[in-house]
Amino acid sequence: MGFFIPPPKVYKPAAEVDLGPDSDEHYISPNVKAPRVAGFLVKMLAWVLETPVLGWIVLGVLKRDNLVYKLVSDAEIPEPPLFTATHTWQAIQEQSVRVTESRLSPAERVQEAVACVPAAAQAQLEPAAGFRRWTVRDFHRAYRSGQATPTMVARRFLAAVEECSGPDLNMGFFISCDPADVLRQAEDSTRRYQQGAPLSAMDGVLVAVKDELDCLPYPTSGGTRWLGSARRCAADAACVAQLRACGAVMAGKANMHELGAGTSGINPHHGATRNPYNVGRVSGGSSGGSAAAVCAGLCPVALGADGGGSVRMPAALCGVVGFKPTAGRLSNSGLLPLNWTVGMPGILAATVEDTLIAYAAIADQSKPSPLQPELNLPMLTRTRSMPSIRLAKYAKWFDDSSEDIRSLCGKALQMLRTHYGWESVDVTVPEIEEMRLAHYVTMGSECTASLAAKYLDSMDRSEVGWDVRIALSAYGSFSSRDYLSAQRLRCRQMYFHEKIFETADAIVTPMTGVTAYALQDDALSTGELDYINGAALVRYSIAGNFLGLPAITVPVGYDRGGLPVGLQFIGRPWSEATLLHLAYAMQEACGKKVLRKPKVHYDLLTKE
Amino acid sequence: MGFFIPPPKVYKPAAEVDLGPDSDEHYISPNVKAPRVAGFLVKMLAWVLETPVLGWIVLGVLKRDNLVYKLVSDAEIPEPPLFTATHTWQAIQEQSVRVTESRLSPAERVQEAVACVPAAAQAQLEPAAGFRRWTVRDFHRAYRSGQATPTMVARRFLAAVEECSGPDLNMGFFISCDPADVLRQAEDSTRRYQQGAPLSAMDGVLVAVKDELDCLPYPTSGGTRWLGSARRCAADAACVAQLRACGAVMAGKANMHELGAGTSGINPHHGATRNPYNVGRVSGGSSGGSAAAVCAGLCPVALGADGGGSVRMPAALCGVVGFKPTAGRLSNSGLLPLNWTVGMPGILAATVEDTLIAYAAIADQSKPSPLQPELNLPMLTRTRSMPSIRLAKYAKWFDDSSEDIRSLCGKALQMLRTHYGWESVDVTVPEIEEMRLAHYVTMGSECTASLAAKYLDSMDRSEVGWDVRIALSAYGSFSSRDYLSAQRLRCRQMYFHEKIFETADAIVTPMTGVTAYALQDDALSTGELDYINGAALVRYSIAGNFLGLPAITVPVGYDRGGLPVGLQFIGRPWSEATLLHLAYAMQEACGKKVLRKPKVHYDLLTKE
Repeated sequence: MGFFIPPPKVYKPAAEVDLGPDSDEHYISPNVKAPRVAGFLVKMLAWVLETPVLGWIVLGVLKRDNLVYKLVSDAEIPEPPLFTATHTWQAIQEQSVRVTESRLSPAERVQEAVACVPAAAQAQLEPAAGFRRWTVRDFHRAYRSGQATPTMVARRFLAAVEECSGPDLNMGFFISCDPADVLRQAEDSTRRYQQGAPLSAMDGVLVAVKDELDCLPYPTSGGTRWLGSARRCAADAACVAQLRACGAVMAGKANMHELGAGTSGINPHHGATRNPYNVGRVSGGSSGGSAAAVCAGLCPVALGADGGGSVRMPAALCGVVGFKPTAGRLSNSGLLPLNWTVGMPGILAATVEDTLIAYAAIADQSKPSPLQPELNLPMLTRTRSMPSIRLAKYAKWFDDSSEDIRSLCGKALQMLRTHYGWESVDVTVPEIEEMRLAHYVTMGSECTASLAAKYLDSMDRSEVGWDVRIALSAYGSFSSRDYLSAQRLRCRQMYFHEKIFETADAIVTPMTGVTAYALQDDALSTGELDYINGAALVRYSIAGNFLGLPAITVPVGYDRGGLPVGLQFIGRPWSEATLLHLAYAMQEACGKKVLRKPKVHYDLLTKE
Repeated sequence: MGFFIPPPKVYKPAAEVDLGPDSDEHYISPNVKAPRVAGFLVKMLAWVLETPVLGWIVLGVLKRDNLVYKLVSDAEIPEPPLFTATHTWQAIQEQSVRVTESRLSPAERVQEAVACVPAAAQAQLEPAAGFRRWTVRDFHRAYRSGQATPTMVARRFLAAVEECSGPDLNMGFFISCDPADVLRQAEDSTRRYQQGAPLSAMDGVLVAVKDELDCLPYPTSGGTRWLGSARRCAADAACVAQLRACGAVMAGKANMHELGAGTSGINPHHGATRNPYNVGRVSGGSSGGSAAAVCAGLCPVALGADGGGSVRMPAALCGVVGFKPTAGRLSNSGLLPLNWTVGMPGILAATVEDTLIAYAAIADQSKPSPLQPELNLPMLTRTRSMPSIRLAKYAKWFDDSSEDIRSLCGKALQMLRTHYGWESVDVTVPEIEEMRLAHYVTMGSECTASLAAKYLDSMDRSEVGWDVRIALSAYGSFSSRDYLSAQRLRCRQMYFHEKIFETADAIVTPMTGVTAYALQDDALSTGELDYINGAALVRYSIAGNFLGLPAITVPVGYDRGGLPVGLQFIGRPWSEATLLHLAYAMQEACGKKVLRKPKVHYDLLTKE
């Protein structure tokens, strides 16, 4: 519209506003020039406003005159919206858990988690029958025994990153990785081991961090080429800080789909992340770099962020474990505010044991609340003896995947029945496509409201990738009615899931409808729109984000093309321990014996 | 837009959806015809979408094809949105309160409240020096002594309603009043008194109910001429049911501004509600009928609903007490869903004592929660001895009212200082106009999302008043970004108010910036847009709604035109007892001695 809009207000943080009598805050008394209108003039005005284009223009002028744009819509506001998604569920009773005391340090929680991991899993560094991935405890044992040092492993890591970032492989794992910073951390850790005082079992363990989470000394790009300089990264994200407190070595900023606004992991600015199982295939996204780095053996654990399956989906495509706890269980502090109600940090790891250890390290116990129960850690040692787990399965949904996925996931579920005697119950999860659309409206609206005033309104569009420009156009097109309707569907889904969890402990689905699809050259610089594959990739992800439910994916095999397939468990709120039990049982029953080595893989521990 | 939109989905209530394996719920697998797009085509599409009008049209087609309109935006969804405004405050310690046991019945709570009211207020039925209004306890005493019966009072009430609804006075108090129903209730009550078994002190007491709350046998019109038939009223609102359980006689449905979408109380369908102090002046709104009926002596207590000052503002204009407790303290069940996060029921009463008694009757104790403390009732008997009350005052805001209001409210505040020794502290409440706009965006967006799919999309616009058509056009024009920005400002204001309540027990303001303004003939059939007066009327109301804070207005005198002036106290969450103490102290200090009889007034108790 071609009329003058006063420049939007830039609010200072609420905590910096002076509330005393001598504050310099400006009191605005509405200074209205509008005359009183009644009778025929009211009718005229109503007719005008109800006329499509003319009405929008007049309403625009009215909103401008009344400062709605300046003070509300277009203003730059530091605070999040005032509302929370509420779980009406009560604290739950879980089997075979270790209830941690509140206010343990991250390092103490890691040690609690280590005590939950079965002794049988304490494998030797000698190569096992077939391929296996080194775990946190493998590294810790090697460091303690002197068989390796964190510095040695860090050097191998840096050499591997250099190799696979080069033009030959061009894997696109990392956006930034500062060798000096990695080495300095590793040397500190090596010194602690030499003094016999490692901080925890994670001391010296490499962790890649998705470039959506703040991690010093790096800027946080969110996969863009502009956000890293437009926004200052002043401190570590809460999850990163907790891992540092355990001695973990931050290995660099993993690549991601730009602004998390896509599922392929193709990033025109920082390179497409390639799948280590097949470099001609995508890694998935948006946490594709984190998933691929773990898959390639560069680190046993990585941090991602999951706003619409963004941790679990690439984990499944890359054949690793992906875990997002209940909304609120991990702090969002230091996570780019791409949305407020669907996204949160998540964990990618090669094994369930390491998922548990990392989860214990980063669980947020700073806000004990009656709505958030204490942290339960699963005693994986007792998984086999857990009675009466019930899994809900919605057949039409479960089977809406490729033939190989359907078959592998069906067999996996059958294995849980035979190995552990766990039952599955058939249910209907209504309105799944409705939920996906409502989630899209929610995520898009929140992304727009969060980024627009501070960044997008004033930026040069040419800085943004083409596919993400299209996504941002759609994101910005929603009305408040769209948004509120989406929240009403959310309320329905909370009810449906609450009811389903009265009859089952978890819902079981494939993680994706297709495996990693082809990375085509024409998409490398522009990105691509592939709605069919995109919808199949996120088909089973949405409840975890839109309803804040915990969910985990675990590898259960490979399709005929040799590409990994993941199975997902979705749990009731705060049932992380049950989900980790399930994932561990699944891994034990079928995962390790079929584990295949990726085409691109580095052994940082036993390699000379 | 001229393209075909599939008819929107009508969802059935979540509780009626079959979640079993044989459910007839339809599984929608996305059946996308969109080809994969990459390279130059992606650029083309981005350019198109970023072109103003063309882009909106193409996005509209994309959203239609992906069923966003059908399944989300335009769908009819029975459930409210999933989010709550959250108070971060903890339970507070209040002075001189009676903590009620949980799970008392409404009648038991009324008796608890009666025990809190000072004995000195137990006046006689003989006319006092000057004008006074009969209270709940006056009626109760007269019924018990046999000096009057509920039937007798009901007959006088019905005669008065008939008289003031006639063409001579044309006061517009009620939308509907069924004499047979009123008499039947009164006769039941009379019988209970004859048997010596009244249900509570409210037995036989007349209560008018705003036509926004369900009350059998009436339809609920919301001030429209179509909603009463479009929506079935199947049961009493929770507040109404609780008053009935105390024996109160529901006196009919009080008039209101159509859909609560205005402040004047001028209703083109059911007549403008006139101010009993001056029939040429407005009553205010939207609970204008409730305020005017109490003012005119037709009932000691009335129910209203307050979404933007709609209880407190007309109460001030009509010289009675208006009270909205903390959001969540009263059940919204049976209240028209005109919005989800700003509106709630409220109480209008002639005196603070009766406000307390009605509050005790309708307080909702069905949902005890860690976020909602027990119900405290103020011991008004001990008000005088309460130490160290601190009142926050923002001078620029306080003084942004007419000369008479400023002067009367200033004197009232001075009286609290001299009579009780209570201090006031000067503060700054930032961003008041910003909050008003954010509240408007919120209320308008929620009204649209709530009513559009089920009613407004398909209705005949000519059924709606002209001023409300204009309001609905504005309400429907907001984007999701507008809505979310408004919620961010809400978050800021919660912070500001939390900080202010660290230094003060309540914020004191005038209730309105102007007194009742002239009711002009040209507005009677079309309504009017009077933004200047409208903004002055709601100037001090918004925090109560937008932040869910409890607030009360109490009359403190009359301007030079003989029109009432109200003073407002805004409290911290759950501090209803403190607010009632403050209002009672104010009433004692200045209210009763200056009380003037309205031009239109009925004495239902001593009149022959």
